[in-house]
Amino acid sequence: MITDITSEFIEELIDLIESKSNKKIIDKLKDFHPADIAEIMDDLSFEQAIYVFELMDDDIVSDIIVELEEDVRERILRRLSSKRIASELIDDLDTDDAADILAELPEKKKQEVISEIEDVEHAADIVELLRYDEDTAGGLMAKELVQVNENWMILTCVKEMRRQAENVDRVHSIYVVDDDEKLLGTLSLKELLTTSTKTPIKEIYKKDVLFVEVNEEAEEVAIMMQKYDLFVIPVVDEIGRLVGRITIDDVVDVIVEEAEKDYQMASGISQDVESSDSVWHLLRARFPWLLIGLVGSLTSGHIIGLFDGFIQQYILLITFIPLIAAMGGNVGVQSSAIIVQGLANNTIRDGGLFKRIIKEIALSLSIGIVLSVIISLYVVTQKDPLIYALIISTALTVVVVIAALIGTIVPLALDKYDIDPAIATGPFITTTNDILGVFIYFSIATMFLH
Amino acid sequence: MITDITSEFIEELIDLIESKSNKKIIDKLKDFHPADIAEIMDDLSFEQAIYVFELMDDDIVSDIIVELEEDVRERILRRLSSKRIASELIDDLDTDDAADILAELPEKKKQEVISEIEDVEHAADIVELLRYDEDTAGGLMAKELVQVNENWMILTCVKEMRRQAENVDRVHSIYVVDDDEKLLGTLSLKELLTTSTKTPIKEIYKKDVLFVEVNEEAEEVAIMMQKYDLFVIPVVDEIGRLVGRITIDDVVDVIVEEAEKDYQMASGISQDVESSDSVWHLLRARFPWLLIGLVGSLTSGHIIGLFDGFIQQYILLITFIPLIAAMGGNVGVQSSAIIVQGLANNTIRDGGLFKRIIKEIALSLSIGIVLSVIISLYVVTQKDPLIYALIISTALTVVVVIAALIGTIVPLALDKYDIDPAIATGPFITTTNDILGVFIYFSIATMFLH
Repeated sequence: MITDITSEFIEELIDLIESKSNKKIIDKLKDFHPADIAEIMDDLSFEQAIYVFELMDDDIVSDIIVELEEDVRERILRRLSSKRIASELIDDLDTDDAADILAELPEKKKQEVISEIEDVEHAADIVELLRYDEDTAGGLMAKELVQVNENWMILTCVKEMRRQAENVDRVHSIYVVDDDEKLLGTLSLKELLTTSTKTPIKEIYKKDVLFVEVNEEAEEVAIMMQKYDLFVIPVVDEIGRLVGRITIDDVVDVIVEEAEKDYQMASGISQDVESSDSVWHLLRARFPWLLIGLVGSLTSGHIIGLFDGFIQQYILLITFIPLIAAMGGNVGVQSSAIIVQGLANNTIRDGGLFKRIIKEIALSLSIGIVLSVIISLYVVTQKDPLIYALIISTALTVVVVIAALIGTIVPLALDKYDIDPAIATGPFITTTNDILGVFIYFSIATMFLH
Repeated sequence: MITDITSEFIEELIDLIESKSNKKIIDKLKDFHPADIAEIMDDLSFEQAIYVFELMDDDIVSDIIVELEEDVRERILRRLSSKRIASELIDDLDTDDAADILAELPEKKKQEVISEIEDVEHAADIVELLRYDEDTAGGLMAKELVQVNENWMILTCVKEMRRQAENVDRVHSIYVVDDDEKLLGTLSLKELLTTSTKTPIKEIYKKDVLFVEVNEEAEEVAIMMQKYDLFVIPVVDEIGRLVGRITIDDVVDVIVEEAEKDYQMASGISQDVESSDSVWHLLRARFPWLLIGLVGSLTSGHIIGLFDGFIQQYILLITFIPLIAAMGGNVGVQSSAIIVQGLANNTIRDGGLFKRIIKEIALSLSIGIVLSVIISLYVVTQKDPLIYALIISTALTVVVVIAALIGTIVPLALDKYDIDPAIATGPFITTTNDILGVFIYFSIATMFLH
């Protein structure tokens, strides 16, 4: 069922585009889902992508547009007139997708497109959605939903649903509201199907319903829907009126983006990139962290340089530099990754910082001691002077404990001040620990050998 | 709406458990969702958790059990009799959750529980599900669904749905099948509500429906549902008969687990851990990678040791060891992370390996050249001999290009042989690049200075 898009397929398509074989292109793409066509377009050059786009059927162009990568979409929208954007794209889209696309347009064009939308209600809904920050529940929600009044009978309800369903692609849930549009509960399809048509809704609806407030953070909504296995969640305004609903597909995107961002951060990539991006784009995403690493490692080198006379006297010391750096770096990354992941999936409790630190010290001390035993045995087998076993064991243990503490405390502190804790992972922690590591190592060595 | 479970809350609860204040415990937990109660239990000691569990209402214990962490659940189930597991848990659960829990039991107990299930149809469905590998569509699917025959009228359909809906918590989709139970399409609720009751289903159902085959890999199902924004997908057997459906909530769990696994792998953690796990558990998860790092860095050290006479003569060289190691490590991790992420979200096309390698060489050469310019300027400002600028620039460029190639090729090769490419990230790549890095560095230095 999954259509595999191979490099060969893309090359064949490019050949068809170059020879302007429109019919063959349409034929080649006709069985693909709009999401696949968007993926294919992302793999083409911009001129090729727009060529394909112009050949597509009117009723799928809006679905293709929402699935495109942001930069490709932006360039295509720049080409299209406001009238075309309104009639071919926005009119066909649900309010949430329509608002997302409008939000990407320059202010002037956005106003032009809005004024061109024919359905006034649709336009009003979109304008309302544009007011919310994209990282909030309001930014995720759509206005399309089915709501019924608590005072209606089942029969009225079914009639009203028929009317409303015309505007709703999928009925996810039936929301029950009072005369002030305040959310009271939900009516299950099961209830609707199995109850006599004269029963008042009031008597059968489910009262306790999970909802989010319109200003709730998107990440919190994601955690909640995931935890409680929800497909859709209603959104209420500050005074409890039903204003929209968020579906799980949009939340999955939030979850995946968050996870990808954390992963990229830990791997030292500062922007959202894909292997198919241009060399220039990839370079810009990779260079900032490398620069931090460069400065950090030159600082480490500088510290080593401070001990050069001493090192010349005890040259064996240099063979343990990689060990000290690697262990400090690895332990620090491990500690920070556990904290970052715990913060991301909300399993880290507020409070209890002192206990957490004690535990991390216990853990890293154990690691340090086990590593020290191994390294001492190694020194003995190498027939190196025993004092080195003592120096390296002491340095290793101190470095590992400090690295673990930095890895634990830094992300927690960043999170406290609402900074993304993920920036504490990867090159940042490694670099800090590198610098501290060599300094501690040579200081301890000086103490023991002088 | 999100109930924040603080450390203080847990401590208060523990006090209540210790003083056996059952009424207060029940009162304290009564407003929590079963998923929250499971989370709270995961934070308690096992004896405390089971104490709380035994106080919970019969109608939520099954929901709590499915949300618990696997090790806690396993220990609780070991305590319960087969009869209790069947009647209090399995009977109340959907077939997919019931099968997942049964699969965790030892063979003998599993058989006992199955024989105790009262509803024969439920038991048969569960037994069927147990046959599928947990990493396939069959392992994710549930048997609860609403299906109608293409030859029925809307009226029959509504009646039949009422009957079937009794066994189904939520009606996600209405599936249309032929007399052989082969999947033909779906009937939307909108159609059902807005069409005259005498219309035959045949005339109104939507024919082209996305489905998966029962042996499809779970990860592929996840990619597909995410890409096409599906809430639920029907599962068919080898000859196209409808056998179950997969809902997005289970797929979200697959996506999150995959992402967490990749992240942990990249951070050098070899098992699924949380910061609340025991020191011993955390130690076992963290130690394997540290051991690899230890062996790797001792090897690096050993290579440095081979050049000790030479280094004593040109002591300045040691100050650039951290730089070479850091740059090789960082570039390698960046390259592998981009590949691993591309493989995970299926954006890397089959074929085109040669082009990919050429691109990575171009990219890493650019990185190498820019870093070389910076480092040469640094050497000049430090008034170090200019030959060092040449040595370090050359070594840095070679190391960065090799690191990028290893980071690109290794995960692709692992994936080719169906090994998780994520093991190529993190400490593994860093360690390899460390060893290669120092070797290349000192070899080049020897060439230039001798």
